[in-house]
Amino acid sequence: MRHVNIGLIGAGTIGKGVVDSIIENGGLVEERTGISIVLKKVCDKDEKILKEIPHLNGVVMTHNAYDIINDEEIDIVIELIGGEYPAKEFIINALKKKKHVVTANKALLSHHWKELFRTASENRVSICFEASVGGGIPIIRALQESFISNKIEIIYGILNGTTNFILTMMDDNGYSFEDALSLAQKDGIAEANPELDVSGKDSAHKLAILALLGFGVEISLENIYTEGIKDISFHDIICAKSWGYAIKLLAVAKRSSSGIELRVHPTLIAEGHLLSNVKGADNAIFVKGDFVGESLLYGKGAGRRPTASAVMADVVSIAKHIVYAGVEFIMPYNLLNSSASFPLVNIEDIMLSYYLRFSVTDKPGVLAKISTVLADNDISIASMSQEDRKEFQTVPVVMITHKAREGNMRKAVNAIDGMDFVKSKTVVIRIEE
Amino acid sequence: MRHVNIGLIGAGTIGKGVVDSIIENGGLVEERTGISIVLKKVCDKDEKILKEIPHLNGVVMTHNAYDIINDEEIDIVIELIGGEYPAKEFIINALKKKKHVVTANKALLSHHWKELFRTASENRVSICFEASVGGGIPIIRALQESFISNKIEIIYGILNGTTNFILTMMDDNGYSFEDALSLAQKDGIAEANPELDVSGKDSAHKLAILALLGFGVEISLENIYTEGIKDISFHDIICAKSWGYAIKLLAVAKRSSSGIELRVHPTLIAEGHLLSNVKGADNAIFVKGDFVGESLLYGKGAGRRPTASAVMADVVSIAKHIVYAGVEFIMPYNLLNSSASFPLVNIEDIMLSYYLRFSVTDKPGVLAKISTVLADNDISIASMSQEDRKEFQTVPVVMITHKAREGNMRKAVNAIDGMDFVKSKTVVIRIEE
Repeated sequence: MRHVNIGLIGAGTIGKGVVDSIIENGGLVEERTGISIVLKKVCDKDEKILKEIPHLNGVVMTHNAYDIINDEEIDIVIELIGGEYPAKEFIINALKKKKHVVTANKALLSHHWKELFRTASENRVSICFEASVGGGIPIIRALQESFISNKIEIIYGILNGTTNFILTMMDDNGYSFEDALSLAQKDGIAEANPELDVSGKDSAHKLAILALLGFGVEISLENIYTEGIKDISFHDIICAKSWGYAIKLLAVAKRSSSGIELRVHPTLIAEGHLLSNVKGADNAIFVKGDFVGESLLYGKGAGRRPTASAVMADVVSIAKHIVYAGVEFIMPYNLLNSSASFPLVNIEDIMLSYYLRFSVTDKPGVLAKISTVLADNDISIASMSQEDRKEFQTVPVVMITHKAREGNMRKAVNAIDGMDFVKSKTVVIRIEE
Repeated sequence: MRHVNIGLIGAGTIGKGVVDSIIENGGLVEERTGISIVLKKVCDKDEKILKEIPHLNGVVMTHNAYDIINDEEIDIVIELIGGEYPAKEFIINALKKKKHVVTANKALLSHHWKELFRTASENRVSICFEASVGGGIPIIRALQESFISNKIEIIYGILNGTTNFILTMMDDNGYSFEDALSLAQKDGIAEANPELDVSGKDSAHKLAILALLGFGVEISLENIYTEGIKDISFHDIICAKSWGYAIKLLAVAKRSSSGIELRVHPTLIAEGHLLSNVKGADNAIFVKGDFVGESLLYGKGAGRRPTASAVMADVVSIAKHIVYAGVEFIMPYNLLNSSASFPLVNIEDIMLSYYLRFSVTDKPGVLAKISTVLADNDISIASMSQEDRKEFQTVPVVMITHKAREGNMRKAVNAIDGMDFVKSKTVVIRIEE
């Protein structure tokens, strides 16, 4: 039996899951691979967290990450502290010490992948990050290996469990955004500060990683148009449903003749589509490649055990390479040399259908004025409903448009929102067919 | 740029897809990996088929597989002729010549995996087979790598596109089995001799491969209970639907306290479940692991381009190992040394709910007699319907039972089918919750 030694930096939720995996299924991994994964050291700055880790035979607990990074016997460092700093310094130094690194840190990767990949490549070691997107869903391997001979045309992802849980609660149980968020926080699905999730930024971090792998193009986060779910009301969910749509926070990377679209925003998805049925904290990623066609990977997008499953997949992959291939690194860092350059499509230039909810005073001529502004901007209405006629009171008028240019839509809505019969900002939600 | 030379044996549907992939996306693979995949020789026994292959620069066409197997310059042999013979001889000899092998041959693998794996292991080369199950769906990699630190608890698969297409046509369009089969044949989805597909045997071959990887246990095909879809009528599909179920040909591998269940049969699946929405020739595999939880992989289960995508994933994986790792083989053949041994659960001992359709003469006392036989065998009825009362004519009586032992169900149905008021063999379809 060959041994591979690992050190774990960050023993919080997912870190504990990794320890559980080694305890519960280490023997199974030995049977399947002939390799024993040995946890040598665990580091956390928090004494209380370290105390909760089962004290396995011979495992050293430490508060100092450099006890792991400088340990000559450790082959693989797992970084699970999250956030950019000090995680970046720990990983860079581990790579320089010729240690393979496994990380779930999407914020770090999406901002600094080039520096991380370059350092790994220069030191001829691997940095693996299956756990950074979609929890236990094997989407990173799918893009890096399974779909490698495909031109990727579309990636659609429900990449954030918290927001999908909130939208599901609103849809299934009629909760308000605030009540659904409170429930998510109570259940440990949302963090005390949910900003990163509900703003769509967490999804944007993950989309940057997927687009990098799928399109081989360097992406800065500021190029991803990002809109969160805070403005979605129960009313919008009900209206969308009555027209056969579910509202999801969708991350979109799409290749077209004019370039690549990258965006994260609430989206109406037709009920027949598999993505519309992704419920609760689950995640799903839809990929269309020119050979493989339409594929969907679905599963638990977060949580201790699913994410630990992805971390351990990377650990075992690296371990197999260390033991059986005598390999120094498993990932060719060709992304670094990529000459690929695609224009990014400006959000103003995308063409989509739209859901619009106007809050207007119900009086004669209102609809004519709205329709005229839309028509002047080349926007045509596909369907319209105004449920409760209450003359001279504020009522919602809901429309679905045919495909229109986003820039025109913005101009039109801006003009309409300036009219005196409009009582609050018009809600605009994009539709993916 | 490093080159890896490949030889293709079998230039039919999928073989042509592989050639298309190299022509269309070879440059993309070079960009992504730094490796040029060079098609050196193509073999097919059929001159007409060879003539249809685009004659690329320098590619040698041959009728003799040994022109490829004995070529010292070829690194990877792709076998796509299908069937057990002569494919087995070709692969064994290629492995002995230290060539890596990529194959989509589920019939061969399910019967002879041990000999193939042993020969590969002894010669320190790889045999890869992502394309053997689920077309372009990356299920083999998921089980071998992504879920490697999971105890697999359940694998449910819709693994045969032909039968799923037939059942979908019956469900959506009210076709009879025969008409749906004819349409499938006309569309090139079913073969002229559809026996392997409609009998469930093709699904059983694929299940054997998945169960081998998931449970690490040697499986002979005769241990997989296999039942096809020929006896499913439109009437059953309508009845199932009225109770909220779809009928699918499901391959099941399930671990329980008493052992492993392995079976392929038509199955009622509740409409809320993702597997019930897999339409047409698509495939999907649901995997439950003790860490990753419930996962679903969905996509095109067959066809030229999706299957070629899976073949090329294996080719590129091996090529990366050849070029970057100096590796001789990437798959640790621990399955060969596995001491794992699980009892297989006898089909008579499984516990499921059942859908039953009796064809009986409608006269007083019939239901009482049926109910008594069921009760005597510990089978209780969950719901029942008898649509058209036509006294003294033959009518269908449809029931769904609570969970019962399969052996008891067989005994009961056997007894009932012997009664004089029963006009034709009772239809029994299993239900997965």
